[in-house]
Amino acid sequence: MRPNSSIDHQPYQICREGKVKMVTNALPPNGGSGTFSYSKNSYFQKLSSSVEERKIEEEIQKKLDVQKLACGSNKIIRVADLGCATGPNTFTNAKKVLEAIKHKYQNQCPNTETTLEFHVLFNDLPSNDFNTLFTSLPHDRNYFTSGVPGSFYNRLFPQSSIHFAYSTYALHFLSKSPEVVQEMNSPAWNKGRIHYTSASKEVVDAYAAQFAKDAAKFLDARALELVPGGMLVIVMPGVPNGMSYSDIVNGLLFDSMGSILMDLSKEGLFDESQVDSFNFPFYAPSPEEMTKVIEMNGEFNIERMELTNPAPWLKSMNQVIPEWIIHVRAVMEAIFTRQFGNEVTHEMFQRLTKELSEKSELVETKHRDKIQILVVLKRKE
Amino acid sequence: MRPNSSIDHQPYQICREGKVKMVTNALPPNGGSGTFSYSKNSYFQKLSSSVEERKIEEEIQKKLDVQKLACGSNKIIRVADLGCATGPNTFTNAKKVLEAIKHKYQNQCPNTETTLEFHVLFNDLPSNDFNTLFTSLPHDRNYFTSGVPGSFYNRLFPQSSIHFAYSTYALHFLSKSPEVVQEMNSPAWNKGRIHYTSASKEVVDAYAAQFAKDAAKFLDARALELVPGGMLVIVMPGVPNGMSYSDIVNGLLFDSMGSILMDLSKEGLFDESQVDSFNFPFYAPSPEEMTKVIEMNGEFNIERMELTNPAPWLKSMNQVIPEWIIHVRAVMEAIFTRQFGNEVTHEMFQRLTKELSEKSELVETKHRDKIQILVVLKRKE
Ligand SMILES: Nc1ncnc2c1ncn2[C@@H]1O[C@H](CSCC[C@H](N)C(=O)O)[C@@H](O)[C@H]1O
Ligand SMILES: Nc1ncnc2c1ncn2[C@@H]1O[C@H](CSCC[C@H](N)C(=O)O)[C@@H](O)[C@H]1O
Repeated sequence: MRPNSSIDHQPYQICREGKVKMVTNALPPNGGSGTFSYSKNSYFQKLSSSVEERKIEEEIQKKLDVQKLACGSNKIIRVADLGCATGPNTFTNAKKVLEAIKHKYQNQCPNTETTLEFHVLFNDLPSNDFNTLFTSLPHDRNYFTSGVPGSFYNRLFPQSSIHFAYSTYALHFLSKSPEVVQEMNSPAWNKGRIHYTSASKEVVDAYAAQFAKDAAKFLDARALELVPGGMLVIVMPGVPNGMSYSDIVNGLLFDSMGSILMDLSKEGLFDESQVDSFNFPFYAPSPEEMTKVIEMNGEFNIERMELTNPAPWLKSMNQVIPEWIIHVRAVMEAIFTRQFGNEVTHEMFQRLTKELSEKSELVETKHRDKIQILVVLKRKE
Repeated sequence: MRPNSSIDHQPYQICREGKVKMVTNALPPNGGSGTFSYSKNSYFQKLSSSVEERKIEEEIQKKLDVQKLACGSNKIIRVADLGCATGPNTFTNAKKVLEAIKHKYQNQCPNTETTLEFHVLFNDLPSNDFNTLFTSLPHDRNYFTSGVPGSFYNRLFPQSSIHFAYSTYALHFLSKSPEVVQEMNSPAWNKGRIHYTSASKEVVDAYAAQFAKDAAKFLDARALELVPGGMLVIVMPGVPNGMSYSDIVNGLLFDSMGSILMDLSKEGLFDESQVDSFNFPFYAPSPEEMTKVIEMNGEFNIERMELTNPAPWLKSMNQVIPEWIIHVRAVMEAIFTRQFGNEVTHEMFQRLTKELSEKSELVETKHRDKIQILVVLKRKE
C-alpha cells in the first residue's frame, strides 16, 4: 500500500452536484491550556481509561511476547497512541504501557543486560495542537518521541513497524457523519436532530454502517502497521448489545444539544436547516458490532473484549454536571463552531449545563454502567 | 545511552552563584505564515541549499548502498531532517533526497517488484511551530511523516534506526553562546559586541571551542542513530581556513547589529550591560575545524567536504539587502526579542536595513563566495 494514496483527512466532500457540502468531520479538541482546553479538561477521560489499566497490564503480561518482538527489531519497541490530543492523558498512558512492557521483558529475560529502547509515536489529526503536546512532554520520560499527523483511518506508519498501539477515547469519532442522514430526499434524513440518539431506525443504521466502514479502515491500516504478534488496545464509549443510545446518559447529551439548537434557531439566530444538515460524527458500538468488524478484517485475534463502568467512583451524575459539560465542550466545541459559529456554540453549552442540571432526575435514570468498551487484539502471526 | 538523560534543550543555566543567568540559546525561527515568518522568508536558504543538490544526489548514487540498507530494515528507509523549521524548504529537501534514494535503488535492483517505504522524521526544537509544519505537509507526498521535538545536540532517535540524515542551515546554531564571553571577569568577556566578529582572539576561541563541543555532541548522537553505512549530510555557513569572520559578508551583519544595539542603549532604551551579556549563538566553521571534530568522533568516513558560493546567481548584494534582512529577521528575531523585547528588536532590524543599504559599497567588498560548507559523511560499517 502506498501511503500517499489516502494519507490525508478530508474535511470537505464534493457533492455530486458539484457544490461543496460540509460533511461534519472530526476536528481536534481545543488546544492550548486555557479554560476550555482539552489539556485542562480531560481528567474524566483519564479516570475512565484508568479503569482499564490493570486489565491492559494483565494482557501484556500474559500475551505479549516482548522478548520475541525485541529480538526482531534491534531491541527497539515502537508504541503508538492513536488520537493522542494535546496531553496530558497520553503521557500517562504511554508511561503505564511502557512500564508493563518493560516489566514483561524483565520477567522473560531476568538476566539480560540489554535494555530496550522505546519510541512512542503520538498520532492525531494534522490540525491537533501538537505544539502544546511537544512543549509539555514530561522531562523525565525515558522514550524517544514522534508526533505523527494524520487520520488513523488511513495508513500512518511504515509496514510492520509498530509493536503496541492503543487508542483511548478517540475511535468514537467517525471519519465523517454518514452522508444519507444529511440528504433531504433520503429516508435516513435526520431532520431536527444532530445525532442518531432517539432518531429513526434508518438514521441509526446509517451511523452503524459508517462506524463499520471506518472501523474496517482503521483495522486494515493497523493490520499492515503492526508486527505479527503486536498488540492493539482500544478503549472507547460503547453500549450493551441491543441497547438504544437514548437509554444511555450520553444520549441525553445529544438530545439536549439538538433541542437547544432547535430553540436557538427558532429564536432567529440561524436557520433550522443548519440543524438538519448537521450530524455529530460520534458513534458508540456494541461488543457484537465490534466483534463483527474485527472478524471481517480477519488479521487479529480477540484477546479480550468487555464493557465496563467508566466511572465506578461516581455516586451520582449530579455532582459533576457542569464539569462534565466542560469536558464535552473541550472535545466537541470545534466541530460545533464550524457549523454554528462561536456565539451560538457558546450559548448552546451554557444552556446545556443549565438544562441538564435542571433535569438531574432524568439524568439519574439513564444507563451509565457498562458504557465503556475495552478491546484487546493481537496481530495474527 | 538512555534517551532521558539529556533529551531536553535547556534555555537557561544556573550560574555558580545560584542566580539564573540567561545563556542565549537557539530559539526557533518565526512560526506561522505572516510577514516575518520563516515559511515566507526562507527562499534564500532554499536557493543556497539547492546549490548542493546535484552533489548530494551524486554521493547517494555513488556511495549509498540502498539495497543493503533496505534489506536490513524490512524495506523501510528512514530519513531525518535535523532543524527542519516550519517548511517549506524541508519538504523540498525531503523530496529530492527520496528521489535520489529511489533512483539508486532502481539502479541497484532494476527487476524488483518491491517498492521501498519511506519514513521522514522532521526534527526541530520543541518550541518550533510544528503546527504550521504539519498543516502544510505536501498532499502528494509519498512518505510517512513524523515530527521529532528535541535538540539535535542530544539523542533524538532509537539506536541504528536512521538511514539518511541531513541538516541544512541549522548547525551554525550553537546550543548556547559560550559562557566565558558573558563573564565580566573573564579575558574572553565580549563587551559591547554580540558576536565573535571583530572580537578578541579569546572570544573567537571561546566560540570555536563551543562549536567543537556542540558538533562533537551532534556527531556522537548521530553515530548511535545512523545504521552502519548510513549517510549524514550537512549544509551550513562556513569560512575558508584561516579567514576571519569580519572579512565575510555575514560578519558585517553582526557588527552592524552590535553597533546599532549600542546606539540604542546610548539613546536610553536599555542598559549597555544588556549588550555585554548578549552573544548570538551562531558559528561558521572552516573545513579544517570540521575535519578535526569528525576525526575526533571517529565513527564516520568523510566522503566529501567543500566550500561553495551559496548564491552564484547573485550579481550584487545590493539588489537584495532588504530581503536579506527579512530573512535574517525570520530566523533570529526570537532570540533578540527574548533579550531586548519586541520594540528594540523591531527598531534594530529597521535600522539595520537602512544602515546596510547605505554601506552598500562596504557590503560589496566583503567575501561572499566560499561561505557555505557541504559535508557528506558515511557511518563506518
Ligand atoms: N481520524 C482521526 N485520526 C486521528 N485522531 C483523531 C481522529 N479523529 C479524532 N481524533 C482525535 O482523537 C482525540 C480524542 S480525545 C482523546 C485523547 C486521549 N487519547 C485521551 O484519552 O485523553 C482528539 O484529539 C481527536 O483529534
Ligand atoms: N539544537 C537544535 N536542535 C534542533 N533544531 C535546531 C537546533 N538549533 C536550531 N535549530 C533549528 O534549526 C533551524 C534553522 S532554519 C533552517 C531550516 C531548514 N533546514 C531550511 O534549510 O530552510 C530552525 O528551525 C531552528 O529552530
